[in-house]
Amino acid sequence: MDLEYMKRALTLAKKGSGFTNPNPLVGAVIVKNNKIIGEGYHERYGGPHAEINAFHNATEDVTGATMYVTLEPCSHYGKTPPCADAIVKKGIKRVVVATQDPNPLVAGKGIQILRDHGIEVHTGILEKESQKQNEIFNKYITTGLPFCLLKTAMTLDGKIATGTGDSKWITNEASRAYVHTLRHRYCAIMVGIGTILTDNPYLNTRISGSICSDPIRIVVDTRARLPLDANILHMNSSARTILATTNLASLEKLSQLEAMGIEIIVTPLENAQVDLRYLMKELGKKKIDSILLEGGSELNYSALSSGIVDKVNAFIAPKIIGGSNAKTPVGGFGIDKMNNAIFLHSIEVKIFGNDIMIEGYIKGECE
Amino acid sequence: MDLEYMKRALTLAKKGSGFTNPNPLVGAVIVKNNKIIGEGYHERYGGPHAEINAFHNATEDVTGATMYVTLEPCSHYGKTPPCADAIVKKGIKRVVVATQDPNPLVAGKGIQILRDHGIEVHTGILEKESQKQNEIFNKYITTGLPFCLLKTAMTLDGKIATGTGDSKWITNEASRAYVHTLRHRYCAIMVGIGTILTDNPYLNTRISGSICSDPIRIVVDTRARLPLDANILHMNSSARTILATTNLASLEKLSQLEAMGIEIIVTPLENAQVDLRYLMKELGKKKIDSILLEGGSELNYSALSSGIVDKVNAFIAPKIIGGSNAKTPVGGFGIDKMNNAIFLHSIEVKIFGNDIMIEGYIKGECE
Repeated sequence: MDLEYMKRALTLAKKGSGFTNPNPLVGAVIVKNNKIIGEGYHERYGGPHAEINAFHNATEDVTGATMYVTLEPCSHYGKTPPCADAIVKKGIKRVVVATQDPNPLVAGKGIQILRDHGIEVHTGILEKESQKQNEIFNKYITTGLPFCLLKTAMTLDGKIATGTGDSKWITNEASRAYVHTLRHRYCAIMVGIGTILTDNPYLNTRISGSICSDPIRIVVDTRARLPLDANILHMNSSARTILATTNLASLEKLSQLEAMGIEIIVTPLENAQVDLRYLMKELGKKKIDSILLEGGSELNYSALSSGIVDKVNAFIAPKIIGGSNAKTPVGGFGIDKMNNAIFLHSIEVKIFGNDIMIEGYIKGECE
Repeated sequence: MDLEYMKRALTLAKKGSGFTNPNPLVGAVIVKNNKIIGEGYHERYGGPHAEINAFHNATEDVTGATMYVTLEPCSHYGKTPPCADAIVKKGIKRVVVATQDPNPLVAGKGIQILRDHGIEVHTGILEKESQKQNEIFNKYITTGLPFCLLKTAMTLDGKIATGTGDSKWITNEASRAYVHTLRHRYCAIMVGIGTILTDNPYLNTRISGSICSDPIRIVVDTRARLPLDANILHMNSSARTILATTNLASLEKLSQLEAMGIEIIVTPLENAQVDLRYLMKELGKKKIDSILLEGGSELNYSALSSGIVDKVNAFIAPKIIGGSNAKTPVGGFGIDKMNNAIFLHSIEVKIFGNDIMIEGYIKGECE
C-alpha cells in the first residue's frame, strides 16, 4: 500500500506545477487505519509546504498516523518554519519519504530530526519518479543554474519549416497544447532574435479553461535588434521580458528597451555572440530555475554545444516536405563525426495523436 | 478459438517471407476435435500452396475437419492446381478465411467453389492483419506495380550525415539488423548513383545464422556513372543488378555494363532524370513486386514527389549533430507550404533499443 499512497502524493505534488518555482513540487498524504485522513501539496512559492497543508486538511486526529511525502521534510527556516518539527509535534508515528532533499540546507537533516524523535522513517519509495518530478529543483538547488529543456518540432524528414519558411503548423493541436503546459511549468521561455524577427510570437501560455502563468520571456539578441513594436513588448502579461545581449548592441537601443521595462543582461562575447553559460549564471541569480528553449536552428546549436541543455523534447509530425535548403532543428557549424554526436539517454516516446515526441536527457556535468 | 488458429496460420505464413515473391504469404492450419492435425505455409515461389502443404503434413484423416487459411484458396490453374478443388476433395467441412484474394483471377471464386460444394465458409477473421501481411502482394496483383517502402535513418535533429558527410553509423545494431530483414523480405533494393559513389555499398542481406536472399539491386543512374569497379558489380551474390538510366547515358558505358551482366532499363526523361513512374512499370513487368528504397536526399524526394512510395520506415537515433549544411532524409526542391506536405497515415512506432522507428503509409492512388 505504501506504493499506492506515494503515487497519490506524487499526483498531488504535480498540481503545484508552474506555481512553486524555484521551490520543489511536494505532495503529502496522511494515512490512519488504512484510510487517507489528510492530503496536501505545495501550492505556490512562499505558501505553506505540503506537510502543513496536509495537516490543515486532516479530517481526523493525526496522532499515530503515517505520512507519505514525496520529498524529505525540510529542517530549516525558509519562508516557513521547518516541517520536520511540525511532524514531530503532531505525533506522526511513521514517515515514508520518496527521496532525500538535494538542497544542501536539508540533505538528510530533516530525516535525522524525525528519527531522533523516534519516528520510523522509510525512504526510497518511488524515488526515481520523485526525482524526475523535481528535476528542475534538483539541478537548480545544487548548481544555481536553470534546468534547460530544448523543445523542437520537425517533420518526419527533419524540417522545422519549408524551404520558403512556412512553419505553420508542423505539429498537431495535441502537441501544441502540451507545449503550453510546458510554458506553464517552466519559469522562463527563451528564443533567439531570429524567431522574433521571423514569427513575432507572443510566447505566452494558452491553456483553455485553466489558470496558468506566462513564462518570463528571454530573448537572446547579440546586437539588440529587438524591434520596439515586437508583440512580446506590447501584450497584457504580468511576466517580465529579459533581453540577453552583448557590447555589440547600441546603448541607445538598450536605453529605449529599458525605458519600456525590459530587463537587460549584458554578457561577454562568446564566438561573437551572447555567452550562454554566463547568461545561465545570471538567470540563476534572478531565481529563474527553469528555461524552456524554443530556439531556431542557430540558437539551438549554440545552446547544445555550450552544454546548457539538460533535456530534449523533440516533436515529430508524420509528414514530409522535402527541400534541400529547408531548415532543421539544429543548425550551426555542426559536429564533424557521427561518433562525436551529442547522445541522449533515458529515452521515452510519447504520442500526441499522430505526432510522436521523443524525450531524452543530455549526458553532462549536471548529472 | 477461430482467432487463435488464424493467428497461428498468420505466423506460419510469415515464414515464407522473402521466398514467395511475387506470390503472397499464406499459412494454413487444419483443426479436428479442437486439435491441430496439420499445418503448412507457402514456402517458396513455384512451390506448393499453404493448403496443400497442410494436407501433406496432416497427422490424421482430415475428413470433416476445419481449415484456417490466411488468404482465400485459389480457384485457378497457376503453377499448381486450384487449392479450392483440393479442399473439396479432401472432405474439409468448414473453412475459415482471413481475407478474400485481391487477385482478379480469384476474387471470391475460390470461396464460391467451396460453398457450391456445401462447405461452410467463414471470412473476415483477422482480415486487417492478413491484408497488412500481404500488402506487397495486394498492390502488385491489382496494379502490376511494385510496392515501394522508403527507409530512412536520421539523427534526432533530422540529419542523415554530418556536414562533412560522415554517416557511420546513425542507427544502432538492432535497427540495422531489422533493415536486413527488410532486405530479405523485399524483392529489390533501390539506391541512387549518389549513394554508390559516396558509400560504395554491397546492398546485400546479412542476417547472422539464417538463410536469406539478397535483393535485386536497382541503381537509379540518369547518366550511367556507375563505376565498373563498384562493389555491387563484384560480389558473390546470385541476385541481379539493374541499372535504370536514360538516353543521357553513353552507349559505350551501357554496353560495358551489359557485358558484365547488368540489366539496363532506359526510361524517358522526367525533369532531366530517370522517370520513376515508368521505371516502376518496367520493374513490375520483370515480376519485381516490392522495392526497398534506401535512397539519398535527392532520390527520396523524386520518389516521394512522383508518387511511387507506398510506405515509410523512418528510423530516428536519439543523438544530435547539428550542422546547417548537413543533409536530411528528403532534399530536392521541396514543398512550399506546410499544409501541402505529404501526410502519412496508420502510424506505428517501433522501438529498437534506443532508436525509434516511425512507420506510416502514404495516402495515394494505390489505396
